[in-house]
Amino acid sequence: MTDRHIIATYHVTSDAARISERALSLAIEQSVECPLDAIGDPWVRDAILGRVALIEEIAEGRYAVRIALAAATAPPEPGQLLNMLFGNASIQPDVVLADVELPASYGEAFGGPRLGITGIRDRTGVHGRALTASALKPQGLSPAALAVIASRLARGGVDLIKDDHGITDQAYSPFGERIRAVGRAVHEANAATGGRTLYAPHVSGSLDDMRRQLDLLRGEGIEALMLIPMIVGLANFHTLVREAEGVVVLAHPAMSGAARIAPPLLLGKLFRLLGADATVFPHAGGRFAYTPETCRALAEAARQSWDGMKPCLPVPAGGVTIDRVAELLSFYGQDVMLLIGGSLLAAGDRLTEQAALFTAEVAQHGK
Amino acid sequence: MTDRHIIATYHVTSDAARISERALSLAIEQSVECPLDAIGDPWVRDAILGRVALIEEIAEGRYAVRIALAAATAPPEPGQLLNMLFGNASIQPDVVLADVELPASYGEAFGGPRLGITGIRDRTGVHGRALTASALKPQGLSPAALAVIASRLARGGVDLIKDDHGITDQAYSPFGERIRAVGRAVHEANAATGGRTLYAPHVSGSLDDMRRQLDLLRGEGIEALMLIPMIVGLANFHTLVREAEGVVVLAHPAMSGAARIAPPLLLGKLFRLLGADATVFPHAGGRFAYTPETCRALAEAARQSWDGMKPCLPVPAGGVTIDRVAELLSFYGQDVMLLIGGSLLAAGDRLTEQAALFTAEVAQHGK
Repeated sequence: MTDRHIIATYHVTSDAARISERALSLAIEQSVECPLDAIGDPWVRDAILGRVALIEEIAEGRYAVRIALAAATAPPEPGQLLNMLFGNASIQPDVVLADVELPASYGEAFGGPRLGITGIRDRTGVHGRALTASALKPQGLSPAALAVIASRLARGGVDLIKDDHGITDQAYSPFGERIRAVGRAVHEANAATGGRTLYAPHVSGSLDDMRRQLDLLRGEGIEALMLIPMIVGLANFHTLVREAEGVVVLAHPAMSGAARIAPPLLLGKLFRLLGADATVFPHAGGRFAYTPETCRALAEAARQSWDGMKPCLPVPAGGVTIDRVAELLSFYGQDVMLLIGGSLLAAGDRLTEQAALFTAEVAQHGK
Repeated sequence: MTDRHIIATYHVTSDAARISERALSLAIEQSVECPLDAIGDPWVRDAILGRVALIEEIAEGRYAVRIALAAATAPPEPGQLLNMLFGNASIQPDVVLADVELPASYGEAFGGPRLGITGIRDRTGVHGRALTASALKPQGLSPAALAVIASRLARGGVDLIKDDHGITDQAYSPFGERIRAVGRAVHEANAATGGRTLYAPHVSGSLDDMRRQLDLLRGEGIEALMLIPMIVGLANFHTLVREAEGVVVLAHPAMSGAARIAPPLLLGKLFRLLGADATVFPHAGGRFAYTPETCRALAEAARQSWDGMKPCLPVPAGGVTIDRVAELLSFYGQDVMLLIGGSLLAAGDRLTEQAALFTAEVAQHGK
């Protein structure tokens, strides 16, 4: 492996006859994301296109596929790294991202844990044994009630107490008030017992929110925090890590198993709710596994009447071709944006004309 | 439905004999996340605990379960909403989040699309027909080369051109340089044709990065952008939507199918890479489906020697009990933090003592 490549290992369900082709399509999906004949630039073909390095059967009908991805496509920015590793493939049902090998430059750029095991041991004074932790719950308790629980846990000698991951900044337990009450309870318990229990409040929301919360917890002398990387976004997670010098950072796994949210809900309803003017999704029959029913429900979720909110424009994509325009318009009606990527670009120098064909075809089927 | 409840519908794989129990455990998981007998406060039991509202068989061995979640647990903060809907359940293999009904106050608070279909039609001047879009690709091309493609697409009459979702801020195509070149190419094409093609650059990274990119694209008179909500984080997505007034926002579905990233990679290796000092994950045999092999690999990924980075502390959790301490320490060794939540809290007034039991048990098995 060179410093110019990331090696991603995927586990792919396939039969023997098709695995080579499937591996290649995966290498394309996670690099250039277009038909090979749409690549005009030889450098892109040589240096950017993902390469299948190894295909190995690991079980009946299941293969490990190692793909060399160009590091240049995913500079050390956390979100983009995840995106190039699994962004689109995450939507394909036959593939699992199993492992990644990164050039050393990524470790240098991201930096890894600031404190790590040694730092946590130093801060808690725990050596020669494993550490202990507990969580403040249930959801719904007041800061005072949570402080009582924390005090008890600390007095019982637990090394780290974290907020339940569902506890954030609710009316019955506002962040500032809670961490003050709990932080002081833990501090008092430590003073009483000579212990060094850490309290890790759950930091959440936008990067702005998380920064405000970090300031608050520093102000209280609290030396740990917890966040949910898959919810706050990996880039914001990493930004906060950089700014939380000296603070123990715990990652919580919530939403790390997010594939199973129904697409109509996530891409249609929720993205709309949060402000998407248009929502791109793979149309049935293309490179992805969405059924026509899923697509119909997604478009409906994006557009239907809902509490006075403006409708969101569905943008079916993913292998749509010009000869399917009529079909898709019949399927979705007119309030839709058809997205055709690769199959247009394959036209090369004749792209203008090909695009004109596309737009004309859509216009022709207008009202 | 009242304004005090969110109704979440889950599809659960189960046999008839166990579905009632499973539905209840799901309602608990997504609300108080602790054993019922750990809830001392009657108000929490009445107002905060999730309630199973309906169980309906939708196929052989498959049930729709409607659960009323207290809106108070998920105030209108996008990340926390996702968290209470599916944060932990996303890790359980037998459940899909199928739909959500929200009180109207959420629509008011989040605001939905700022422009929506009408706004996009107004900006592109497209009425009476569907809209068209294409993407700039492949990855690897220079700004000048992408501008050529954009110009061609615009001249062909495509209504919206977006960056390929893999194109962000790479050395061969820096964000500022790219959007200037492409934006001007599209502008010139529009001037030449009288068209009104929109260009939607891919905005990515931390909230800080996205704000810088938004400033740059505004400076170029660009009126659209694309982002990946599941990568930038829903709260940052929404923050940017609020600040991108007048700009068309496209949501891209990458990573919306993220369940299938191997936990050792995501929770062990990548979270460590990004700076987690400790990583919480469900231990085998608890409420989640991780196998012992998965847990072992996860702990190994978090701790093993890797480019000089500090090791990250594994924190197995999820149904761990005191009587499993010896087993877990034997499994993980000493460089671990055992997290026991609910089963400690069930001790109620005797929590201090129960916690002391836990810490003593761990100490007893120390080096």
